[in-house]
Amino acid sequence: MKPIQVGLLGIGTVGSGVFNVLQRNQEEIRRRAGRGIEIACVADLDTARARSIVGERTRVVADAREVIANPDIDVVVELIGGCGIARELVLEAIAAGKHVVTANKALLAVHGTEIFRAATERGVMVAYEAAVAGGIPIIKALREGLTANRIQWVAGIINGTTNFILSEMRDKGLDFDVVLKEAQALGYAEADPTFDIEGVDAAHKATIISAIAFGIPVQFDKAYVEGITRLAAADIRYAEQLGYRIKLLGITRRTPRGVELRVHPSLVPARRLIANVEGAMNAVLVQGDAVGATLYYGKGAGAEPTASAVIADLVDLTRLHGADAAHRVPPLGFQCASLSEAGGELPVLPMSEVVTSYYLRIRVADEAGVLARITGILAEAGISIDAVLQREAEEVGGEGSTQTDLIILTHQTREGDMDAALAQIQGLPTVLAPITRIRKEELS
Amino acid sequence: MKPIQVGLLGIGTVGSGVFNVLQRNQEEIRRRAGRGIEIACVADLDTARARSIVGERTRVVADAREVIANPDIDVVVELIGGCGIARELVLEAIAAGKHVVTANKALLAVHGTEIFRAATERGVMVAYEAAVAGGIPIIKALREGLTANRIQWVAGIINGTTNFILSEMRDKGLDFDVVLKEAQALGYAEADPTFDIEGVDAAHKATIISAIAFGIPVQFDKAYVEGITRLAAADIRYAEQLGYRIKLLGITRRTPRGVELRVHPSLVPARRLIANVEGAMNAVLVQGDAVGATLYYGKGAGAEPTASAVIADLVDLTRLHGADAAHRVPPLGFQCASLSEAGGELPVLPMSEVVTSYYLRIRVADEAGVLARITGILAEAGISIDAVLQREAEEVGGEGSTQTDLIILTHQTREGDMDAALAQIQGLPTVLAPITRIRKEELS
Repeated sequence: MKPIQVGLLGIGTVGSGVFNVLQRNQEEIRRRAGRGIEIACVADLDTARARSIVGERTRVVADAREVIANPDIDVVVELIGGCGIARELVLEAIAAGKHVVTANKALLAVHGTEIFRAATERGVMVAYEAAVAGGIPIIKALREGLTANRIQWVAGIINGTTNFILSEMRDKGLDFDVVLKEAQALGYAEADPTFDIEGVDAAHKATIISAIAFGIPVQFDKAYVEGITRLAAADIRYAEQLGYRIKLLGITRRTPRGVELRVHPSLVPARRLIANVEGAMNAVLVQGDAVGATLYYGKGAGAEPTASAVIADLVDLTRLHGADAAHRVPPLGFQCASLSEAGGELPVLPMSEVVTSYYLRIRVADEAGVLARITGILAEAGISIDAVLQREAEEVGGEGSTQTDLIILTHQTREGDMDAALAQIQGLPTVLAPITRIRKEELS
Repeated sequence: MKPIQVGLLGIGTVGSGVFNVLQRNQEEIRRRAGRGIEIACVADLDTARARSIVGERTRVVADAREVIANPDIDVVVELIGGCGIARELVLEAIAAGKHVVTANKALLAVHGTEIFRAATERGVMVAYEAAVAGGIPIIKALREGLTANRIQWVAGIINGTTNFILSEMRDKGLDFDVVLKEAQALGYAEADPTFDIEGVDAAHKATIISAIAFGIPVQFDKAYVEGITRLAAADIRYAEQLGYRIKLLGITRRTPRGVELRVHPSLVPARRLIANVEGAMNAVLVQGDAVGATLYYGKGAGAEPTASAVIADLVDLTRLHGADAAHRVPPLGFQCASLSEAGGELPVLPMSEVVTSYYLRIRVADEAGVLARITGILAEAGISIDAVLQREAEEVGGEGSTQTDLIILTHQTREGDMDAALAQIQGLPTVLAPITRIRKEELS
């Protein structure tokens, strides 16, 4: 049988990875897919660079629409990124009856509903394993491997840049700014690292995970997003002393009132496997009611790990090309008809409704009664305390005025209640600096 | 559409898990599968117990063949176990045109080739996610998630009983026999634990993994199998001092001369994630050429984790029921035609051809020159030494005769060369007890 014909839109790092792995492993892949997979055409504005990657035997064009219009192309792989031209091209490819593979998490987190609906109506598949956690087949695990389960929650280290930075901060006791520069020098962080360090990239991925886990529409606009830029080396050290590591987690949880969807730094017990995921690695922990906890670990980025996911999608599409829609896995793993319905029943909760526990670091004047006042406010708000760590006082400024860090771990409480209590505590004259509040997840 | 009709052969622990999870999550499962999944009939010799599990609305019979002969049944789930009647029934179900789901690793490791061939000829599917690592979707990851990769090796903790025993031996410093009794009391080990502690169960699973990873036939008879019964608490302690944990690993590796397929206790660097998998948990580490290392972790046994895998298979079968064979994933992930061919090119290597590194514990008389003689023999065999740990001598028996444990870590060498060197060392008059030899895997 003729190889399945693939058109590549954009051939940067990931695109060249896809091209190289398909070439190198073509025999193995053909034995698996039952049919060859061939990149027939590549579109990239930089045609010279594209040509240098693919050689003479593959067609190179500057205009992506030429690929989409090509009647020989079965599958379009979108590797342009972003929500602008990529969205247009994906929708055009679908309209032209092409299956689509994309690694574009931003596009799916924001425009997924529109794209999946268009694909379903046109009878084509949209596959996106590479959009979440790079080479780890977590989309497949959630959509197909854990279908028996009512998923209870998913928590993942799904951004390698921030995990690298946090690992380095902990290993070397350095502050965020210093490590960010090192990460940029090493290529682990981009020149403009905003999307990574502010948690946006992780939130795109968490949004997609949330939709698959619970059968709800993608709702990036409802995600709570907090990055790692305000983390101090001191918090990582204190957390360590209390038996925790700090990780940037993407968390989504089913509760009776709705779904939590949030990205923020989290204290995780140091003995958990996921707390020991270091450097730029990714890991996703899934809690299902039948299977219990399962964890998936691997490289979340890079040319070939991402290519691994793109090509796995191509093999799936190759097998299912021409099959009736009933034989395919629907885009989010749930039948589309049942999706919108459930979205109504399972709203994404505002952050004030989220229930979790907390690490608080409060800079206080070293005076009698400070701890009593603070714990009194927490008690009044119904927030119970798990542990207190009081540091030795340091002399600051002279004249015998001393300050200290008060570290408090709380039990579970509503974020809204915590906000109110913190506002009160912040107002105390003995509280000398903005309070640091980091959420704590036991993941048990 | 009418729910897919499932017949259950055997309703013990896993069978009742399947029944209960299907009931509890039926709505969620229907939304995923696009169609209900219904256990229409259960066969079990103990019909009274079966009836007490499934209630009045499900048909219960004593004769499995009645289920197979039932024209309304689409899928037969075999949960009887073993290679006797289970093999007959699976082949009969296939002959009757039923899809088969099985959790029976022994059956597939020994008779997989016959069963997969029969299924392919008859045009039905055989699914077996539950046969390896319980609820962890590792079969799906290997067959579908990592299809882009040339798999280089897989190493797994794929037997919960032995991992529980090893974890306890390490935690509490106890010897094997003591912990085995505790594990039996807690239900982590069976009354007759032979299959687990001798490594046979892990070897069944490693055999299946090997076939999927490399596209070779299942060849249990070629597997090297060594259990944990001879491990001493001292070895676990020494390994710890050298920065290693001891795990029972199922390992399969592609080499230029063939495939390694082996189960044995292994020293693993303590900093590796897989070394920190404790208790009855399972984990499988897969090294692919594109994706690098990925790890899959979760519960490897138990009613509902295993049911999770069985039901995931049922959802897959429900989606693909009626689809052309080209749209399905072949039993071992590779097209059947390409399987036998490759089996010839990639023979399973005898253990003497395996290349790995070693931990040696040698009980020696505390005399001058002992270390020199032993290291001399290793050097002559071309085996280089990575580290030596010499314990303080203990007085044994009186009259000033002292003994000591000499611990040697070697670099990589052929097992055959190590066998020959060890035979020589064992023959030295200063070597006072059988040498302990444990393989060491860096997994990097």
